[in-house]
Amino acid sequence: MGTYSSLKQTAFEANMQINELGLVLFTFGNVSAADQDKGVFAIKPSGVPYNDLAPEKMVIVDFDANVVEGDLRPSSDTKTHAVLYKHWPEVGGIAHTHSSYATAWAQSLKDIPILGTTHADHLAVDVPCAPPMANEMIEGNYEHQTGFQILNLFKERNLSYKEVEMILVGNHAPFTWGESAEKAVYNSAVLEQIAEMAYLSLQINPNVSRMKNTLIQKHYDRKHGKDAYYGQKSLKPK
Amino acid sequence: MGTYSSLKQTAFEANMQINELGLVLFTFGNVSAADQDKGVFAIKPSGVPYNDLAPEKMVIVDFDANVVEGDLRPSSDTKTHAVLYKHWPEVGGIAHTHSSYATAWAQSLKDIPILGTTHADHLAVDVPCAPPMANEMIEGNYEHQTGFQILNLFKERNLSYKEVEMILVGNHAPFTWGESAEKAVYNSAVLEQIAEMAYLSLQINPNVSRMKNTLIQKHYDRKHGKDAYYGQKSLKPK
Amino acid sequence: MGTYSSLKQTAFEANMQINELGLVLFTFGNVSAADQDKGVFAIKPSGVPYNDLAPEKMVIVDFDANVVEGDLRPSSDTKTHAVLYKHWPEVGGIAHTHSSYATAWAQSLKDIPILGTTHADHLAVDVPCAPPMANEMIEGNYEHQTGFQILNLFKERNLSYKEVEMILVGNHAPFTWGESAEKAVYNSAVLEQIAEMAYLSLQINPNVSRMKNTLIQKHYDRKHGKDAYYGQKSLKPK
Amino acid sequence: MGTYSSLKQTAFEANMQINELGLVLFTFGNVSAADQDKGVFAIKPSGVPYNDLAPEKMVIVDFDANVVEGDLRPSSDTKTHAVLYKHWPEVGGIAHTHSSYATAWAQSLKDIPILGTTHADHLAVDVPCAPPMANEMIEGNYEHQTGFQILNLFKERNLSYKEVEMILVGNHAPFTWGESAEKAVYNSAVLEQIAEMAYLSLQINPNVSRMKNTLIQKHYDRKHGKDAYYGQKSLKPK
Repeated sequence: MGTYSSLKQTAFEANMQINELGLVLFTFGNVSAADQDKGVFAIKPSGVPYNDLAPEKMVIVDFDANVVEGDLRPSSDTKTHAVLYKHWPEVGGIAHTHSSYATAWAQSLKDIPILGTTHADHLAVDVPCAPPMANEMIEGNYEHQTGFQILNLFKERNLSYKEVEMILVGNHAPFTWGESAEKAVYNSAVLEQIAEMAYLSLQINPNVSRMKNTLIQKHYDRKHGKDAYYGQKSLKPK
Repeated sequence: MGTYSSLKQTAFEANMQINELGLVLFTFGNVSAADQDKGVFAIKPSGVPYNDLAPEKMVIVDFDANVVEGDLRPSSDTKTHAVLYKHWPEVGGIAHTHSSYATAWAQSLKDIPILGTTHADHLAVDVPCAPPMANEMIEGNYEHQTGFQILNLFKERNLSYKEVEMILVGNHAPFTWGESAEKAVYNSAVLEQIAEMAYLSLQINPNVSRMKNTLIQKHYDRKHGKDAYYGQKSLKPK
Repeated sequence: MGTYSSLKQTAFEANMQINELGLVLFTFGNVSAADQDKGVFAIKPSGVPYNDLAPEKMVIVDFDANVVEGDLRPSSDTKTHAVLYKHWPEVGGIAHTHSSYATAWAQSLKDIPILGTTHADHLAVDVPCAPPMANEMIEGNYEHQTGFQILNLFKERNLSYKEVEMILVGNHAPFTWGESAEKAVYNSAVLEQIAEMAYLSLQINPNVSRMKNTLIQKHYDRKHGKDAYYGQKSLKPK
Repeated sequence: MGTYSSLKQTAFEANMQINELGLVLFTFGNVSAADQDKGVFAIKPSGVPYNDLAPEKMVIVDFDANVVEGDLRPSSDTKTHAVLYKHWPEVGGIAHTHSSYATAWAQSLKDIPILGTTHADHLAVDVPCAPPMANEMIEGNYEHQTGFQILNLFKERNLSYKEVEMILVGNHAPFTWGESAEKAVYNSAVLEQIAEMAYLSLQINPNVSRMKNTLIQKHYDRKHGKDAYYGQKSLKPK
């Protein structure tokens, strides 16, 4: 498997995990694992069923989306991954799924409001939903522009990709990321859970309001603040 | 198993698959696999539990719904399959399930609006819902007429069965098809996913509108257009 | 196991089946199997987890709810079963679950409207929901009266227990029955499916109306009419 | 494992059970088992995945939340458990999950209304939802105050912790308890079921009212009253 065997193994395992977590139907999802020093990432080949995946089938791509190693076509969403890695130097993994509840929110073109501590344990703001792109961007270099659609929303809202590791792309589906591919997958599962709970909450009580800031901050900080006390020191979610 | 052993094997495997994919309860579904050159198809026997199925129990039927080979009665929906094969010469497989979300849309007598790329990756229009039949058709050759109910809606709306491989039959349930029985089953699972996501989206935001045409076309074309780039050349979904 | 070993075996297997079908949480359900000639039935012991069940733990009870054989207390719903067996001589099995969707309809005090063929394949009317009992019946011989609450609703609405094999008991949960315990369990699973689909349909389209009578009759008759053609002659659902 | 090996084993098994019952995603939940005589409890270590748990990793804590034995940090919710054990001397186990439906009700800041016998079999009142805490309590000793938030609501509403073994903490998630850790876990599963059914019922019929008191009392008493006749004498749920 050559130079990138460890990166391919990481990407392979992370792809298998989104399948095991029930976050994808057939091939509707992909995960990549990056080596930021080398400027490359390993990503799922396009349209290959999870049962047929193997570490050596992962495709190595650089941050301009050129294939560096691999016989198969990389995921059709590869350019989106490349843009994010290029601009966000501390991202080590990206996951994309069409999980039911998160995708429904994306289709609804709505941010997921922060209603509880399950949400606040992971991010201190609503899960952002990027609006659909302008027609000329869709008709141009679409997947490349999807990356910028994400970057731009983060700029506009003044969000940090290190504090908010997930986004809904309007009319499409979620992308999540993190320090590692494993963390990106973890975030995909968390997002699906948050999306389901927010859905149910608003069905029960359409007038419920966002939780209060003190409680948001308390929960976010006990996991991520400088005096975080959730988890074990060595096991702490990164 | 005689002349049709390969066709029976294909039909058997496809029937087992709708069961494994969680698309049927008990015997509420059936799949057939056709040999268009020979003018026959293999279909599930009526009312036989999936646990008791075997390739040799599949029934061979011609396109006028006459049994050609087999000891068991074919599925009660056989005439519907026959009509579709007879009029749509490039269909190689048909699947019928009562999967929960797709059936709920059929019972609601509503098309499934196209709200996201999961949908647009597979078809560029709303999933059509055929209205209930006129009484004289129901009381006549019902399952035969169900086939025409489907054909007529496709004519009225000027849809191509090669581009739209699924329909909801009002007050009943979905039918899907494709080049092969395997593709028909794949489409049944995709439809259930689309149906669930559209359901959830409209619960979250009842005023959401259909996604814009440029985005629909982009996603449909990247999988099905002449310059499609989704999947591997050899693995591309047919 | 003595005289009733076969009846106990049947009841045991049917109880295990409602568990495997995902229709019960913990001990929230019970199935009985009757021998109408002998005037007895075998029923699950009260409060015993499914993992601890065994054929010899089933309790034999007569149609006046007296224990005939067995060391354990029979299900707390035993008197309801007894009343139904006593008055409906062709019932061979009764199942009671608290499955989610059927129970939600019971809690909503609403009949499940007949909206599609999945429903009409099994019964030609709305699934009836019995109203809560009068206080003096609740405070009296409650489970005995539950049986009469069911019988009375069938009389009032002029329903046949051989054509309608399920009911919702308001504020409580469903009861289903049939020629055999196996058929009763089958009906519990069908009811849960019907209940889920009707729920989803009304969420999608709150104004949807009942399906038309010709279509109801067509589907009911193709499975249950004198010229039924669904299923195999030997396999036909009884 | 020293003095507390049996207590750790009990806590370990109960923690594994909430995972097997599908009540937790990743590490979003924890169970403890108390020895009220010794004034200590065993609780899950913070942030450790269920796959990595073992009896010897449980942490022993006293009722003032001081670690008595164990190398790992106890659950971040430990102080809440400690407060409840200290004030409720007959509680032997406490479970905390973020199960979907129960958490959605907590996020909605609504009590779960008592709509059916599944609910009344376990408690005779609505499942209480504690309002969010005042800011100074959140910013102070948060998890300690969460315990008092629970105690205070029980006092205000004049509820007995022996009759009502569950609560929703507003904007957070449920806590349940019982004579033993096993019973606490059982109550978490029951609560999720009640929460789902109430959700569905109110979607079907938004105007449904609470069930009547005679029926509530009947069901509660047949399981918990002095003449309870549900279950076996030796197996009766404690």
